[in-house]
Amino acid sequence: MSHATARPEIPAARYRERMDRLTALTEGRGLDAILVGVGPDLEYLTGYRAMPLERLTMLVLQTGRDPAMIVPTLERPDAERAPSAGTIALTDWSDGSDPYAAAAPLLDPRGRYAISDSAWALQLLGLQEAAPGTRYVSMTKALPMLRAVKDEDELERLAVAGAAADAAYMDILKVQFSGRKETDVAADLAEALMQHGHSEVDFTVVGSGPNGANPHHEAGDRTIQEGDMVVLDFGGIKDGYGSDTSRTVHVGEPTAEEQEIHDIVRAAQQAGFEAVRPGVACQEIDRAPRKVITDAGHGAEFIHRTGHGIGLTTHEPPYMVEGEEHVLEPGMCFSIEPGIYVRDRFGVRIEDIVTVTADGGRRFNNSTREIQLVA
Amino acid sequence: MSHATARPEIPAARYRERMDRLTALTEGRGLDAILVGVGPDLEYLTGYRAMPLERLTMLVLQTGRDPAMIVPTLERPDAERAPSAGTIALTDWSDGSDPYAAAAPLLDPRGRYAISDSAWALQLLGLQEAAPGTRYVSMTKALPMLRAVKDEDELERLAVAGAAADAAYMDILKVQFSGRKETDVAADLAEALMQHGHSEVDFTVVGSGPNGANPHHEAGDRTIQEGDMVVLDFGGIKDGYGSDTSRTVHVGEPTAEEQEIHDIVRAAQQAGFEAVRPGVACQEIDRAPRKVITDAGHGAEFIHRTGHGIGLTTHEPPYMVEGEEHVLEPGMCFSIEPGIYVRDRFGVRIEDIVTVTADGGRRFNNSTREIQLVA
Repeated sequence: MSHATARPEIPAARYRERMDRLTALTEGRGLDAILVGVGPDLEYLTGYRAMPLERLTMLVLQTGRDPAMIVPTLERPDAERAPSAGTIALTDWSDGSDPYAAAAPLLDPRGRYAISDSAWALQLLGLQEAAPGTRYVSMTKALPMLRAVKDEDELERLAVAGAAADAAYMDILKVQFSGRKETDVAADLAEALMQHGHSEVDFTVVGSGPNGANPHHEAGDRTIQEGDMVVLDFGGIKDGYGSDTSRTVHVGEPTAEEQEIHDIVRAAQQAGFEAVRPGVACQEIDRAPRKVITDAGHGAEFIHRTGHGIGLTTHEPPYMVEGEEHVLEPGMCFSIEPGIYVRDRFGVRIEDIVTVTADGGRRFNNSTREIQLVA
Repeated sequence: MSHATARPEIPAARYRERMDRLTALTEGRGLDAILVGVGPDLEYLTGYRAMPLERLTMLVLQTGRDPAMIVPTLERPDAERAPSAGTIALTDWSDGSDPYAAAAPLLDPRGRYAISDSAWALQLLGLQEAAPGTRYVSMTKALPMLRAVKDEDELERLAVAGAAADAAYMDILKVQFSGRKETDVAADLAEALMQHGHSEVDFTVVGSGPNGANPHHEAGDRTIQEGDMVVLDFGGIKDGYGSDTSRTVHVGEPTAEEQEIHDIVRAAQQAGFEAVRPGVACQEIDRAPRKVITDAGHGAEFIHRTGHGIGLTTHEPPYMVEGEEHVLEPGMCFSIEPGIYVRDRFGVRIEDIVTVTADGGRRFNNSTREIQLVA
C-alpha cells in the first residue's frame, strides 16, 4: 500500500557513508543522536522509501553505535530489503502494542535529539511522553544543511531532471493557449513532463492575465485570451530527483509595459545567478534580484523569497531568503525565482534551478529566458 | 505549486458546522483549543486544501472565539478562496519573518492544545519554543474520532469510490497474469482505477506466489506463473474520498490447500462483517476474524490488524485492532481485511470497505469474494 516509483540504484556503501557523516556532525552540537522519521531524510540516509503511514518508523543515529531503526512488524520485510539494511540494527513493533514504549529503549532517557522536520507531531508527542526526560530540536535548526550539498550521483540526476523540464517547456511553446482554459494547458504541461521521463508531476501552474498576479495560483477555469501574460511554473520528480522551473510567456505581442516588467524580472534573475559562489550567504541570493526589482520601482510587488533548495523533494533547505546566513557550498542546488506581481492585472516569474560550483553558479535549466510569444 | 484535484463541492455551511461541532467537543476534555495543520483535518474542517510545504499554516479552534487561521502571506489569496473563508479570521506571515512568533498571539500562553497528527514535528517544536508554557496532545489521543463518523455527502462518495474499485477488479480479472510481471498487472490495475474515475492511485499491490506472503509487498519484477496465488490490494482517491479493496485470485486451478486457506480467510472476513453494529468496540472487529483464523490453526500467520478507517485519506481512525475500545457508531467507515501469510509460499487477503448502519454493516465493495481463476 505504497507509492512505487522506479529509481536508479545508488551504491549501498553511499548510504552508510551518509549515515556516518551525519552521525559525526552531531558531535560538538550538544546532540546525543538524530531521529529520522519517514520521508526524504530517511530515503537519503538508508535508501528505504517507507510508506508515509501513521505507524512509527524511525532511524536512530548515535555516535559509537551502529545505526538502529524501529519499524512496524508488517514493514520489516521491506525494510530488510533496503540497500543499507545490512548496516542497520532493526527492531520492530506489532499492531496493538505501543510503538513509543518500544522505541524508548533506543533513546537515552535524558538525551537531546534532532528530529526530522516532517516527522509527525503525533510521533514527537509519543516520544516526549514515553521518554519525558528527552529533549528535541528540529533537523532544520540542528543540521539544516543535512541534504543540501549534493553528491555526484545527485547532481547528475538534478541536471537530467532540469533538462527534461526544459524539453517540456519547448513542447508547451507549440501548443494553443488562447481560447483554451488554464487547466487544459496545465494538462499539456503534465503530459510533456511525463513524456520527458518524470515519474511524478508535482505542480503545473498556469497563471494567465490577472491569475498570474497570485504567485501560488495553480490553474483554473479561466479561458486564456489574446494579450495575456501567462506564468508557467512546473516540475516534479524524475529518477527520484526534483525539477522546478518557471517561464512567463505572452499570447501575441506584449505591450511596452509588459515587456519592461519582463525585462526587469529577467535582469533580476540574472543578478541572482551572478551572485552565486561558494562562501556567499544565502540571503545574498535573495538580495541581489530584490535590489534590481526595487531599483526599478517594483519592490512591493516581489512578495516572496527568491528561492528554495531542491533534491529528493522539490522544496527543502537551503532557502534563499533574507535572514538566512548559511553560506553557499559547492554542490548546493536551489531555485532562483524572482517575480513581479501586478495586482489584478498580470505577473511575471522566471525560475531556474542552479547549483554552486567552485567558481560560480551552473544552471540546470537552460531554455531561453527571453519572453516567448505563444498562439 | 500544488496538487490540483477536482473535487465535488461540499456546501460552505457544512464546514462551519464541522468546526463548531469540533470546538464544542473540546469542552470537558481539558483542552483550550485545537490546532490543525496542513492535511486532511484542515481540508475536512475548512475545505482549504493547502499545499504540504514546510511553511506554517494552522487553524485554531477555540470556544468563544471565531475560528482563526495563520497562513503564509503567499498563500493568503488561496486561503481566502476556501469555501469556509468568510467564517475564519485570517492572519498571515511573510517569508523571512518568524511564523511561530506570529502564531503565538493566537495561543493562550498556558493553554493545552490538541494538534493534528500529521502536523510537522518542525512546527510543533516551533510552537513549543515560541510559547513554552503551552502543552500539546495529539488529535488521535484527544479527539480520535474527529473525522471518523461520515456525513451523508461523505458516505455517498465512499460508496462511489468503492463501486469504482469493484469495476476495476472486474476489469483486471480479464487480463493475462501468467507470463507477465507483477508490475505489468499493477499498471493495468492503476489504469483501470483511473478509467473508473479515480484522480489518484495510491497503491496497486500485486503479490504473486511467495511475494503474497509479505502483506506489504507492492509489485516487483517477478514473472507470474501458472499455479500462483496472487494477492491484489488496490485503491486511491475518487472525488476526494478513498477506495481500498483486496481480492486474492489464482492462476489456473488452486490446490486443495490453497482453496482451504482462501475459504478460511473468506469466512474470517465474513465474521468481521457480521460483527459490525453500533455499540461494538473496534477491537471486536479484529477479534471475530482472528478467532476464525486461529480456530483453523493459522493464527500465527495473520500478522496484522484487521482494518483501518477511510475517508479523505486511505488510512485513518478508527483502527480495528486489539486494544481499541472505541465503539462503532453509525457512519463510521473502515476496512475489514484479514489475511493468512504462508511464509515463502503464498498469501491470501480479502478486504472490503464497510460502513456502520443502525442495524449492522453495509459493504462498499460488493464484487465476489470467492476465489477467481485468472489466465
